[in-house]
Amino acid sequence: MTRRIPWVWLAVICTPVALVSVLGGASADNLFIVRLFGILPAILIVGKLAGEAFERMGQPSVLGELIAGALLGPSLLGLIPTAAADPMTEVIRIFAEIGVVVLLFEIGLETDLRQMARVGPGAAVVALVGVALPFAIGFLYWASPLVTEDFNVAHNATTAIFIGAALTATSVGITARVLADLRVMGSVESQLIIGAAVLDDVLGLVILGVVAGLVSGDTVTVWSVLRMLAVAVGFLVVAITVGLRIAPRLFTVIDRMRVRGFLLVSAFAFTLFVAWLAHAAGSAMIIGAFAAGIILSGTNQFDAIEERIKPVADIFAPIFFVSIGAQLDVRLLNPAIPANRPILLIGLALFLIAVVGKLAAGFAVPWRRFNRWAVGFGMVPRGEVGLIFAQIGLTAGVLSPQIFSAVLLMVIGTTFVAPPLLKWSFARGGVTAMDGSRSLEEHRGPPPS
Amino acid sequence: MTRRIPWVWLAVICTPVALVSVLGGASADNLFIVRLFGILPAILIVGKLAGEAFERMGQPSVLGELIAGALLGPSLLGLIPTAAADPMTEVIRIFAEIGVVVLLFEIGLETDLRQMARVGPGAAVVALVGVALPFAIGFLYWASPLVTEDFNVAHNATTAIFIGAALTATSVGITARVLADLRVMGSVESQLIIGAAVLDDVLGLVILGVVAGLVSGDTVTVWSVLRMLAVAVGFLVVAITVGLRIAPRLFTVIDRMRVRGFLLVSAFAFTLFVAWLAHAAGSAMIIGAFAAGIILSGTNQFDAIEERIKPVADIFAPIFFVSIGAQLDVRLLNPAIPANRPILLIGLALFLIAVVGKLAAGFAVPWRRFNRWAVGFGMVPRGEVGLIFAQIGLTAGVLSPQIFSAVLLMVIGTTFVAPPLLKWSFARGGVTAMDGSRSLEEHRGPPPS
Repeated sequence: MTRRIPWVWLAVICTPVALVSVLGGASADNLFIVRLFGILPAILIVGKLAGEAFERMGQPSVLGELIAGALLGPSLLGLIPTAAADPMTEVIRIFAEIGVVVLLFEIGLETDLRQMARVGPGAAVVALVGVALPFAIGFLYWASPLVTEDFNVAHNATTAIFIGAALTATSVGITARVLADLRVMGSVESQLIIGAAVLDDVLGLVILGVVAGLVSGDTVTVWSVLRMLAVAVGFLVVAITVGLRIAPRLFTVIDRMRVRGFLLVSAFAFTLFVAWLAHAAGSAMIIGAFAAGIILSGTNQFDAIEERIKPVADIFAPIFFVSIGAQLDVRLLNPAIPANRPILLIGLALFLIAVVGKLAAGFAVPWRRFNRWAVGFGMVPRGEVGLIFAQIGLTAGVLSPQIFSAVLLMVIGTTFVAPPLLKWSFARGGVTAMDGSRSLEEHRGPPPS
Repeated sequence: MTRRIPWVWLAVICTPVALVSVLGGASADNLFIVRLFGILPAILIVGKLAGEAFERMGQPSVLGELIAGALLGPSLLGLIPTAAADPMTEVIRIFAEIGVVVLLFEIGLETDLRQMARVGPGAAVVALVGVALPFAIGFLYWASPLVTEDFNVAHNATTAIFIGAALTATSVGITARVLADLRVMGSVESQLIIGAAVLDDVLGLVILGVVAGLVSGDTVTVWSVLRMLAVAVGFLVVAITVGLRIAPRLFTVIDRMRVRGFLLVSAFAFTLFVAWLAHAAGSAMIIGAFAAGIILSGTNQFDAIEERIKPVADIFAPIFFVSIGAQLDVRLLNPAIPANRPILLIGLALFLIAVVGKLAAGFAVPWRRFNRWAVGFGMVPRGEVGLIFAQIGLTAGVLSPQIFSAVLLMVIGTTFVAPPLLKWSFARGGVTAMDGSRSLEEHRGPPPS
């Protein structure tokens, strides 16, 4: 057992298996599942190895998972499909969606509602400025003479609104993961970022409603916009208020159950259910998952739930980050191809607007003392909501495939630069504890088990 | 927080939400995922509640999960789809498949290879008799005058072979779950059942290859049958032998990784990968998952893996059992409808053959002392492999929809009766420890956490 020929054995097992897998007849019945069982281990192992490599280079491991995605995506190795025509795309997306939902549930579980309330006004201002500024600059950029006809793009107001809208919403998943990796979750900066990012998503969904109305030709009134806003905010308030009253009782009953895994299954099902409710109420599923976490943080079973949901998050969350990375068509990054140049130029401009707009939001709360660069950079990553805007615009013919690619570059670019920038800003500017004390060293606990 | 109006609040939250969900416009983009997020909590919660109810009635909880499936299936509430045309069917199947794979991995993890080797010859005889006898009786029944033209069925040898083949393979998932529920996993009976069921699956796959060859018109030779058998058995032996050498080294390296969840993700990915390898080598994915468990039981990280895979199994495994229950069309059970009567009669006959054939296998090992009824009943449940046979027969036109339904009734019937019969036989006949001592009381540990 302890002899020293480890890699020889890998060859020993791989060669016959490779032969058999090429020659062997798989029964057609479950080829789809077999394919999935080949893709999932690759996503998980390559993602974790790349994450480990980045962790050892002193970078957030989520960055490694994103790059693993780009590597496994259709533009390089082609293992992860992203084409809508391939049914596997939808299945991977389902796993990714469960990943981000479980992640937001975990974040909600670790959120102290009273602490968050203390940064509430600040988070609201960060969210509002961080939505208004990128939207305005994005709109003006598109209407300006900087965008010439050479770019083969439409110069109308609807396109400009879409461009502006795609720049608004922060992707809370990426930032939260980086904050957790850096172990600064309890800081003022983290509370501000998470609070603002959740409000951001709410605002982003309202804008999405307006923009979708514009495309479908519905009349968009001030009244309908306000109603959408009220539904989205109302859901969060009602779900958390009612949930905090029901859940402790419900989970006291659940704790008396005898069959194995009842508590975890209940918490998981509760999360999916609140996510579903959130969607049904016109909000986003990740907002519902976050609310579910906050609700269950008020139960006595909090510790047991947190311990048992962790392995579930460990399996699903990497699939989310890797599949975001897979969206990147690395061939677009080659400026030697003439057709890429306008896309790269527009993408770069949108990227700069995206970064500057959110950075300014970090400086929009003068009455509190905290690391403003960290909050600004923490708001930088765009994600799902931006991609949804781009997708709707493309389908509706408002965005050309070239502009769609530019928006995609902006989304991916912000996602890739935010983790190192966030880490750098914390290392330089320090972390503010909730009592206002600032510490400059990194808050590094023991390595996570 | 501690006032006493619990159920009022449920109404408070449900009413507006129900209204909004009916009125509210869900964005078409992710309706599929939204639907899944409605189905999964229902599967998990109804499954767990029914399991709890059966546990409290002194029955195995898996029976509750099966009945929950029948309740949620298309013939009653219609929440779980089973029609091939609905893409959700495939997605639920994927979750179910991951569930049974993780379950078999857990069983493999808890399997002591040396103990299993000690019951090896016994398990082989149980498997052989339990495959040969139901096949022979099933074939003869179909060729006999008992099956009349009234039943509107084909009286040819191919159909008879299909009927026989569908009766062969035990569903290891159901039995293993009941053995775990009864906490008798370490007994001689359990080792015999699990060992025989795994061999059974191997034999079932060989028969599947032969039968599929019959349908497609390939020439089936003794040589090709032996080759299939060699590949399937060979995979198990090679995978476990090579794996037991590589895995300890591999997981020592993995244990040095810093990023969160590396160990669990590696074990999960390893399981999917070996399952995939098993399929590529012409064996079944669950056999691969079982082999992966045995391999990792030889690593130093065994305890940590077992602890962390548990929550993952808790989420996925119920989906497997509930979705099996959903296959049952309860309307077929109504004898008042004349068209149902031949189906019910044939189904009953096949069910009796299935039970008697496996029961006889329990008595086929005269040289060892153990609870023969328990082993016989433990081999009774038919599952996936039987359903695959029925599906192929239906698609190829060898089985009429009526016979298909009768086979389905046999599969579901054996699955439903096995858990209570197994529990009853252990309660009456006792449990045999590996040292040969027999105890009559139930081996009940503390309730699982």
